[in-house]
Amino acid sequence: MARFREKVHGVTERALPETVGVILAAGSGTRLNHGPKPLKRVAGRALLERAVETLRLAGVGPIVVVVGHAKEEIERYVAATGLEVELVLNGDFQLGNGSSALVGGRAAGRRFLVTMADHVFEPDAVRKVLTSPAAFALAVDTRPGFCDVEEATKVRLEDGRVVAVARQLDPCDGVDAGLAVCDPEVVFAAERALAEGEGSWNAVKQRWLAEGRELAAVDLAGSPWVDVDTPAEAARAERLLVRRAARGRSDGLVSRRLNRYVSWRLSLLFLRAGFTPNAVTGIGFGLTLFAAGVLALGAESPAALVAGGLLVQLASIVDGCDGEVARASLRASLRGAFLDTVLDRVGDAALLVALALAAGGGTSAWIVLAPALVATALVPYVKASFEATFGRPLPPPAVRVRFGRDARLLVIALAGVAMQPLAGLAVVGALSLLEVANRLAPAWRASAG
Amino acid sequence: MARFREKVHGVTERALPETVGVILAAGSGTRLNHGPKPLKRVAGRALLERAVETLRLAGVGPIVVVVGHAKEEIERYVAATGLEVELVLNGDFQLGNGSSALVGGRAAGRRFLVTMADHVFEPDAVRKVLTSPAAFALAVDTRPGFCDVEEATKVRLEDGRVVAVARQLDPCDGVDAGLAVCDPEVVFAAERALAEGEGSWNAVKQRWLAEGRELAAVDLAGSPWVDVDTPAEAARAERLLVRRAARGRSDGLVSRRLNRYVSWRLSLLFLRAGFTPNAVTGIGFGLTLFAAGVLALGAESPAALVAGGLLVQLASIVDGCDGEVARASLRASLRGAFLDTVLDRVGDAALLVALALAAGGGTSAWIVLAPALVATALVPYVKASFEATFGRPLPPPAVRVRFGRDARLLVIALAGVAMQPLAGLAVVGALSLLEVANRLAPAWRASAG
Repeated sequence: MARFREKVHGVTERALPETVGVILAAGSGTRLNHGPKPLKRVAGRALLERAVETLRLAGVGPIVVVVGHAKEEIERYVAATGLEVELVLNGDFQLGNGSSALVGGRAAGRRFLVTMADHVFEPDAVRKVLTSPAAFALAVDTRPGFCDVEEATKVRLEDGRVVAVARQLDPCDGVDAGLAVCDPEVVFAAERALAEGEGSWNAVKQRWLAEGRELAAVDLAGSPWVDVDTPAEAARAERLLVRRAARGRSDGLVSRRLNRYVSWRLSLLFLRAGFTPNAVTGIGFGLTLFAAGVLALGAESPAALVAGGLLVQLASIVDGCDGEVARASLRASLRGAFLDTVLDRVGDAALLVALALAAGGGTSAWIVLAPALVATALVPYVKASFEATFGRPLPPPAVRVRFGRDARLLVIALAGVAMQPLAGLAVVGALSLLEVANRLAPAWRASAG
Repeated sequence: MARFREKVHGVTERALPETVGVILAAGSGTRLNHGPKPLKRVAGRALLERAVETLRLAGVGPIVVVVGHAKEEIERYVAATGLEVELVLNGDFQLGNGSSALVGGRAAGRRFLVTMADHVFEPDAVRKVLTSPAAFALAVDTRPGFCDVEEATKVRLEDGRVVAVARQLDPCDGVDAGLAVCDPEVVFAAERALAEGEGSWNAVKQRWLAEGRELAAVDLAGSPWVDVDTPAEAARAERLLVRRAARGRSDGLVSRRLNRYVSWRLSLLFLRAGFTPNAVTGIGFGLTLFAAGVLALGAESPAALVAGGLLVQLASIVDGCDGEVARASLRASLRGAFLDTVLDRVGDAALLVALALAAGGGTSAWIVLAPALVATALVPYVKASFEATFGRPLPPPAVRVRFGRDARLLVIALAGVAMQPLAGLAVVGALSLLEVANRLAPAWRASAG
């Protein structure tokens, strides 16, 4: 069930489709050692791909990518991955990213959003900037918590406007987050700045201010974003993304209070090894079946029972990784959630049968197994059936402590470690029955009329 | 699952909310012996209540009911049942139903739909008439199959218009179905007809034609409707409604080709006895548990096994009655469908456990039971989970012969009658597994991208 509730993350919102995305990917990016910076993989996705996907999820499109340095590699990457973007070349990229914004803005031909290929944002931050009606609006961060403030461009604010912007600025109210939304006239300001020999993006903002125009500020305070310049920053961005993905879990208490602190580290490993979310789902399912096999041997050997119990908890932790990997790599999908939930049902049943076998497989074990299997299957069925029938989420249960899959697997793991398979089976069955009642009561009330 | 797919029937469509419904319930209705005709129960609902519900489901509202004869009884009934209608008295109802249409049309004050309290229509027929843009449109039936043509008003048609309307008409092209949609000006035509001493509804149509106005015809050909004048017609309407409700089933082959021919007769009995759909669901569930109990005794007595098998098939037939009763009495609800599907899961499990017990409850029985329970639970889970996740129906499976609940219960029943509980369990498990694959394959394809 770990990926079940995240469905909204897989849906593309196209709130403002008229805004073109302009991703600046022309700089030289000398500080990251392996290949061009836009192609650096961070949490399973190249920075450029991540920027494209972030804009797409925020409803921005079409998307223009301005290239210069390492344009052949980027072109090859875009062709190989089938990324839906228009590549535009800035032959004078050495003049600065202001010239790249100019080239991108010209290609856009209408209102556009400028972002840097080496900046990692969440789609919500992009959506927030898009809401500004100003001719030129800058995303700023008055509480920068994740970037290198020393290296960042600073801003001074007054009444929600930027009044000064520069690398060195004292006093200052925040930093420039590297995300802006611009009307076409910003292109002309960039042209005038360039005509005076100023090719940086900061110079365009300064020129705009010098011309007495309003530069609106949209404060991202609270939303994490990272400017990836060094390998250390890449690693920091990766950890940040995976931990945020782990916090995004909406499943039970055991997941949130226990498994999460281990699962995000595993998810980081999976991402670095290049696993897709569905591959991680498969690994978790395989581990569950393996744990069930070891647990079943518990009838012969107490050590197998204990080992099986430990493996069950490991499988439970890995069960949460698919969703974390999916969210961190912007690959959450309904299909993945569906695959996960069907495999979870098979895994649940395998573990319960294993407990019965571990308990010796006698009549008493089978008599406890049958209702436990039924009750365990009913818990997710009540939810799925309610949602399928009424087309809305199951209302929150009366007792907030839910006996979901994470708690079920913990009970099974403890039953193995404590060498009490039959008692574990009985507890799972009884608590599942209570959980069925706990879900049915509000479902029944909510379905009135 | 019997009521699961009918969800759309419970949803009120308000496509044309500006049309007021006018139900003529003022006539004396002398030919039905028990009480006023509008209160005669047909398939679980009083004719008046059924007319109101039909209009409501077709999106007509608010609703005006014109009363005259037996107005106190109708008033009491409306108060007791909380029917949301405005009662309007026609003191001169003896002048004819044209005078009642006049009173109702005046109360409506805008475009209105006229129907008779003693006519049974399907909501689709009402929706069809509502689509006419004409100032005055009549529902006609060029292929009357369910009414007494001798008694009916005939119409002559030309280019989709009614050119003549009368009780005696030769040649004629069809009959007047007693459903019309009218602009307020029809009220004035009724006033002029009445001023000349013509109080019938037919006189209003004739006057309209005599004034050279267009009377549009909407052909209901194919849609069943009944004018309930005699006890025989009431019984015929009842049978028609229940058989149509039974044909409306969308479940498996066993239901449609076998159970339906018995279930509609049982549904008729349930409706006549005044059972609600949920009560019938409860009866079916109780019968399933009883059948499981008898089946389980099969370990002791072969006769119990055979009796249990027969009871299972009876329970399967009754399982379809709740949906038929709900549709025939216009009481289909999502809540009922949800209740039904959750109880079905418990009933399924009880029957499988009963088969295992009947097989002697030995290790071999339990080893076959566990996967059978899991596979049986997965069949509906795959569907519910797909629909909950994607918010759309599960695509049709590759193999059209589905192994749903109806087929499952037939196998269990045959296993009982053939005294082969273990083989039955194995067959249910194996076919359910195949059905899971049969549902997963198209689900997986449909979830791409």
